[in-house]
Amino acid sequence: MRIGGTHYRAIWMDEDPAVVKVIDQRRLPFAFDVFEMHRAEDAVMAIQEMVVRGAPLIGVTAAYGIYLAGLHSSSGGWCGEILRAADLLVNARPTAVNLTHAAERMLREVDCADSRERAVERLFHLAVRMTEEEVTRCREIGEHGVRLIEEVYRSTGREVRILTHCNAGWLACVDYGTATAPIYLAHDRGIPVHVWVDETRPRNQGARLTAFELKEHGVPHTVIVDNAGGHLMQEGEVDLVLVGSDRTTRTGDVANKIGTYLKALAARDNLVPFYVALPSTSIDFNMESGGDIPIEHRDAGEVAYVEGWNETTGQPDRIRVVPEGSGFSNPGFDVTPARLVTGLITERGICEASEKGIRKLFGR
Amino acid sequence: MRIGGTHYRAIWMDEDPAVVKVIDQRRLPFAFDVFEMHRAEDAVMAIQEMVVRGAPLIGVTAAYGIYLAGLHSSSGGWCGEILRAADLLVNARPTAVNLTHAAERMLREVDCADSRERAVERLFHLAVRMTEEEVTRCREIGEHGVRLIEEVYRSTGREVRILTHCNAGWLACVDYGTATAPIYLAHDRGIPVHVWVDETRPRNQGARLTAFELKEHGVPHTVIVDNAGGHLMQEGEVDLVLVGSDRTTRTGDVANKIGTYLKALAARDNLVPFYVALPSTSIDFNMESGGDIPIEHRDAGEVAYVEGWNETTGQPDRIRVVPEGSGFSNPGFDVTPARLVTGLITERGICEASEKGIRKLFGR
Repeated sequence: MRIGGTHYRAIWMDEDPAVVKVIDQRRLPFAFDVFEMHRAEDAVMAIQEMVVRGAPLIGVTAAYGIYLAGLHSSSGGWCGEILRAADLLVNARPTAVNLTHAAERMLREVDCADSRERAVERLFHLAVRMTEEEVTRCREIGEHGVRLIEEVYRSTGREVRILTHCNAGWLACVDYGTATAPIYLAHDRGIPVHVWVDETRPRNQGARLTAFELKEHGVPHTVIVDNAGGHLMQEGEVDLVLVGSDRTTRTGDVANKIGTYLKALAARDNLVPFYVALPSTSIDFNMESGGDIPIEHRDAGEVAYVEGWNETTGQPDRIRVVPEGSGFSNPGFDVTPARLVTGLITERGICEASEKGIRKLFGR
Repeated sequence: MRIGGTHYRAIWMDEDPAVVKVIDQRRLPFAFDVFEMHRAEDAVMAIQEMVVRGAPLIGVTAAYGIYLAGLHSSSGGWCGEILRAADLLVNARPTAVNLTHAAERMLREVDCADSRERAVERLFHLAVRMTEEEVTRCREIGEHGVRLIEEVYRSTGREVRILTHCNAGWLACVDYGTATAPIYLAHDRGIPVHVWVDETRPRNQGARLTAFELKEHGVPHTVIVDNAGGHLMQEGEVDLVLVGSDRTTRTGDVANKIGTYLKALAARDNLVPFYVALPSTSIDFNMESGGDIPIEHRDAGEVAYVEGWNETTGQPDRIRVVPEGSGFSNPGFDVTPARLVTGLITERGICEASEKGIRKLFGR
């Protein structure tokens, strides 16, 4: 997608194949920095510190991290070094299953009986292929999801109002995004859309990243606090909710950014369709119940402080929003049970959020 | 209640009866300032700019404003001047019905055939009486509500975990608070309580005021973002939700700070009791449906910026959290339908959130 007219992806290979570059999402939209990853440790740090975030993107980042581990491995111990790097990357964040999927696939590519050079070459090509596949999946999600937007437009003849939570945009993926892919496609095809963007405290990925993405692409949107979405649905101001997913169980329970569950409840109470857009790399076929998904608890500082732009100093800044002496809790995700999900939008089509629905598309 | 060991109310009369003082809640907890009201216009401004906020407190502030209008009125036109001030005060904010109730009662005290001096004296005494009555009502709400907390404690034998949204504390009232009155009473009686404090964007009344109040009174509490409450209920971490109300219809629909409705939905979905604490001055006996309650739309700047404490400069500050070029919407309240409310805690006892329940207590 574009930033200031220039096409970007969230992650890309430098001309030097020993350097992988990502947009540093910690400072967007107030500063545009590119972060370079030279070693697997850089990829671990980038995932943990949320230089990169979003389930599909951290999966791809982990793949490149494993490649970088191979690139810098010793000729004697390369195989064990790659395995150790993969282990660190898988455990960099607990909730998204994409890390595990990416690492498992990369490791299957490695044959320890093979030569180090051959292994590195295979890892390189697979990381590149996985990146392209993630882009393709997002584009396909867009093609399937846009039909939902078209339907609303056909039946109402007016602007289609979509609410989204957090950033399931191209910055969370590699390109197009998951929840945003149908929105971008609808907009590009001339269907009038308007997006309600949940701010998404504590890290404000909605206000900072989704609003930024939509603005750069010219999609009409309005930023609201996370508290407002229920009221908007009561007032009939929302036609559709579209969100992403960090992990979806094989039964259709969805872990996504904290607060998603509240919007799903409001959607159900007001008969607003609630769709989750996700590539199959976010489906955990080994997990049955959403209650088993590990929920990341993040640093208290994310609640105590808010980051933004200080107009007085003209610099990014942070301010404390809670007085000293109070405690904090900061769960990063919640689980929306399948019963509240109208459907899953995947690269293979739209299905019911149920074991049967998922099996029909993915045959497992 | 106490701040740093000193007893305060949110509003009080100066020794000079021409000056009414309030705690300036725009800068709490990062600065403690007292705001002086000398004229009715000061009261209008204090309500509009949220120097004072909270339905019971703005009602009392309006009463004092009408008294100040009388105090400074001309001997020829005093009656009309008081009426005009009352009109401005009633329209200072739309959602809380307390403004209307306070003004109507003050105006009933004025007999235009009477002398100006006599009228001012009557207004003075009534404003003082209304203040004391609001304090008494909150204390009574505490007495009725504490039984709910005691019940949980008796049946579980452990700390009672209560979630609250926004500030329905003593700062929103005159003393004790509505939703907080039962909590303070339970704490003072040795029942172990722990309060989950919703941050309450956009103005962060939870993080700034409720956390501050609880800390000053020594009540254990944890600040969370507004997105987190649903997850905590799913995890079984909430025994009770207690919130206030800006206007409750005679059928039990409750307008309260934006986001309250989302917590009511989560409470229902997880079988957590959801109680609304309110003095009868917040009940609109003339209104049947919550859908008719006027919802205030506030300035976009509240969404675009966050206020807090800049640790670098050691000063209160604000930072922009949304990039330039995005639109904003900022509804201040939402309506929780009576069907989601377990009960109303009033000064006359706890009742069902229904016309029948309210009529049983208030006989209208």
